[in-house]
Amino acid sequence: MGIKAPPDKVFAALGTLEGLAGWWTRDTTGHAQPLGRIRFRFCNAAGTELGAFDMEVLTQDPDQAVRWRVKEGPAEWVGTDIEFLLAQQDEFTIVNFAHRHWREEAAFMAHCSMKWATFLLSLREWVETGRGRPSPDDLKIDNWN
Amino acid sequence: MGIKAPPDKVFAALGTLEGLAGWWTRDTTGHAQPLGRIRFRFCNAAGTELGAFDMEVLTQDPDQAVRWRVKEGPAEWVGTDIEFLLAQQDEFTIVNFAHRHWREEAAFMAHCSMKWATFLLSLREWVETGRGRPSPDDLKIDNWN
Repeated sequence: MGIKAPPDKVFAALGTLEGLAGWWTRDTTGHAQPLGRIRFRFCNAAGTELGAFDMEVLTQDPDQAVRWRVKEGPAEWVGTDIEFLLAQQDEFTIVNFAHRHWREEAAFMAHCSMKWATFLLSLREWVETGRGRPSPDDLKIDNWN
Repeated sequence: MGIKAPPDKVFAALGTLEGLAGWWTRDTTGHAQPLGRIRFRFCNAAGTELGAFDMEVLTQDPDQAVRWRVKEGPAEWVGTDIEFLLAQQDEFTIVNFAHRHWREEAAFMAHCSMKWATFLLSLREWVETGRGRPSPDDLKIDNWN
């Protein structure tokens, strides 16, 4: 995903609670620093919890990389790693995203893959315009969420 | 991706030239039947060709599955397989999409992965509303396209 903004603005969206709450889920708490833990909760419009993830921050390299390891959450997610690498190209900051180490290719992985793409679009909107689509106002893609 | 439509409507969007031209690229020609070849051309707004793929139709199971094998196109795509599996759940037809057998994880694969997600959103719009975003009116995601 290419974002028309300098790397420090994209990094702020990935490396601070305020930034993460702007495009992924409004219910973001914890400590966004190396070895810190961040808790991401997802609720529906009525406030019922749909799921929550606790991540440990593995890497937080200003303007270059953010990596998390999932410590608590759905069984399929625990132990997986989430990675955002930043690179400047032309007028863009390119976000190279990966969610690594899924143990099997299942319907839930396919759902999450598509959902990540919609959140990368939300990240771009947040950085470029200041208005993202974080949960619970996220784009719904199927009968799960 | 879940689409609020019966499987036969989604299948029509995947298994006919008219359907494919409605959400992927307007420049779709060939024969959408088993062992047929379909040519997909992508141009920019000025009409300059950005790329083209020739696919052989491997599977065309009404309301269930479409599979293609890439026969000509960018080197990274040739020999890869593209798969759409359909399943009815609640009021949705779920499209389980995969682009298999990439030989290496490179920046171009990441670009295509994100681009596929935006085309799945276009597919949903096309089926649900009759208005997709096929190339050259596709959503741009970075400095490539």
